[in-house]
Amino acid sequence: MSWLQETIKSPCKKTILAATTRQQQLTKPPGSLGQLEALAIQLAGLQASEQPKIEQIAISIFVADHGIADKQVSAFPQAVTAAMIKNFAHGGAAISVLAQQLNAKLRVSNLGTVSQLDAIAGVEDNRLAAGTANFAEAPAMTEEQLQQALAIGKNHIDDATDKANADLFIGGEMGIANTTSATALACALLQKPAAELTGPGTGINRATQQHKQQVIEAALAMHQLNADQPLDCLRVVGGFEIAALTGAFIRGAQMGLPLLVDGFIASIAALTALKFQPDIAPWLILGHQSAEPGHRAVVAAMDKTPVLQLQMRLGEASGAACAVPLLQLACALHNNMATFDSANISTATI
Amino acid sequence: MSWLQETIKSPCKKTILAATTRQQQLTKPPGSLGQLEALAIQLAGLQASEQPKIEQIAISIFVADHGIADKQVSAFPQAVTAAMIKNFAHGGAAISVLAQQLNAKLRVSNLGTVSQLDAIAGVEDNRLAAGTANFAEAPAMTEEQLQQALAIGKNHIDDATDKANADLFIGGEMGIANTTSATALACALLQKPAAELTGPGTGINRATQQHKQQVIEAALAMHQLNADQPLDCLRVVGGFEIAALTGAFIRGAQMGLPLLVDGFIASIAALTALKFQPDIAPWLILGHQSAEPGHRAVVAAMDKTPVLQLQMRLGEASGAACAVPLLQLACALHNNMATFDSANISTATI
Repeated sequence: MSWLQETIKSPCKKTILAATTRQQQLTKPPGSLGQLEALAIQLAGLQASEQPKIEQIAISIFVADHGIADKQVSAFPQAVTAAMIKNFAHGGAAISVLAQQLNAKLRVSNLGTVSQLDAIAGVEDNRLAAGTANFAEAPAMTEEQLQQALAIGKNHIDDATDKANADLFIGGEMGIANTTSATALACALLQKPAAELTGPGTGINRATQQHKQQVIEAALAMHQLNADQPLDCLRVVGGFEIAALTGAFIRGAQMGLPLLVDGFIASIAALTALKFQPDIAPWLILGHQSAEPGHRAVVAAMDKTPVLQLQMRLGEASGAACAVPLLQLACALHNNMATFDSANISTATI
Repeated sequence: MSWLQETIKSPCKKTILAATTRQQQLTKPPGSLGQLEALAIQLAGLQASEQPKIEQIAISIFVADHGIADKQVSAFPQAVTAAMIKNFAHGGAAISVLAQQLNAKLRVSNLGTVSQLDAIAGVEDNRLAAGTANFAEAPAMTEEQLQQALAIGKNHIDDATDKANADLFIGGEMGIANTTSATALACALLQKPAAELTGPGTGINRATQQHKQQVIEAALAMHQLNADQPLDCLRVVGGFEIAALTGAFIRGAQMGLPLLVDGFIASIAALTALKFQPDIAPWLILGHQSAEPGHRAVVAAMDKTPVLQLQMRLGEASGAACAVPLLQLACALHNNMATFDSANISTATI
């Protein structure tokens, strides 16, 4: 049996009930902390702890190139993928700055850049190929590559739980043209037309976006994907970094590690994991609503409310990282506020 | 000349321009950090610093009772106002927990509870009366009380700038029945009917909300307020704590201190300040979108986008406090990310 078939952990129902009761007893009108109450209750259930906490944070950025970039679907050349790997490692990227501010452990995994890269301190060399195949012409990955990419994500979770004792996992991605791959995957999983989900990505113009949509439409017409086989959809139009994220999300839910999901691309990896195994749902927290227009449909399909809505659209786990302080404040409020009883305040209403 | 007439400080245009240019040079697609970019630029301009920062945070909670509570418009009895003052001081309230997490300085000022309170460590006794007058029958405040309440808010800002060297001021409030007062004030300032702005506050039922709306309608019909005289509207239907917040916001903009505004009631104090002196606008940052339904109209009138949308509706500065980490992350990203030049990444697009 593959590790993919292992049982998904169940959140602790008893702790959820206790946390829900406690929220009603804290010195505030019931429900007045809004989403922060729901987050504290969710985290209590996931961590099976009446005192949930987010102290050790594991962030993994998975990076890869995409054959579909040959179709000129991005605003940036593929050389940027490799350049950004260096930027992550040198501390200059948004996620580098955020990880430092959050005192989080940041790992960077190169699953397959087109550019040859010398060894870089702080970057794990997990190259499976010089980018995926161009899915306009052939499946993006072989079955072996898919399994390898999923396993790399799994390994990051195993390290986060076994070695880092993480309270929370955040997965991010980077890879020129990967909104094209992710959009095609979302179209296949949600059975929606490319016209509905295609967006500007890093900032292409209207004409290029039209072209991007046509590239996706043609590929979907060619491959005739089956939404009931999510990992096969991932193999055919996905990317190495999207597969690694999917593997991480599946493994996180197996290991009982709360998963904070980033924006458009990470959410589509989470959706893939969810279509593969619906029991993953309670382990996913959506960090933010991306400005990429197709994200709304993906979020709606997951029936989740993102923590932040800041019109961000950077990827590389940046939106999820920004949501971390809200999770921490939700836990602090839950753990440290007085109850009506302890503060000696009457709950009698008029 | 009253201090109220002193000149509002102008944000530094040169720094805003420099910060805007820098955001274009950071290693991310332009605009991809969304609202965090705008916040960093705004804070740079307000602090006249190319390295904006939120380190010293001054939080003031103004508390008072309301004569309009006699009309049975709240879900809780007035005794809760005094009980919550103790809870603030003893560290058990939401804002107490948040202030500790943010390492912020929290001040609590009692401007007029109905209950007599013994001296409490950490609570400033600024009682102007045993609550305001019932504005269903008479103006809530005398002119002298209004000026005293405004001045208490001013003093908190003067202390925050002179003594605490604050980078940011957050004003909060507590006072049973104060959504009724704030809603009446918003109706007067925005010339909107009570039916459009009245909401459930701490959680009254539908019948009580209908009654609350009628109380506001009757009071507005009796007082015939003039929207062009915002401080007079404040005197007649406002509250001591709302006036203190208004004074603080006016003074903050005079002293050049960035102001992070909480939800429904604090926003209406900010709107009052803004109607009194429109140049205050750039100094206001809205921390969150409250779940109180009338807040949308208030936010729209200020032409601002709140940082958070978490369905919170607690007041006591809790929503604004939760937005602080986002401001801090916006500053860190602005100050510490690499530029395309420094990271040696080509900005050439395809």
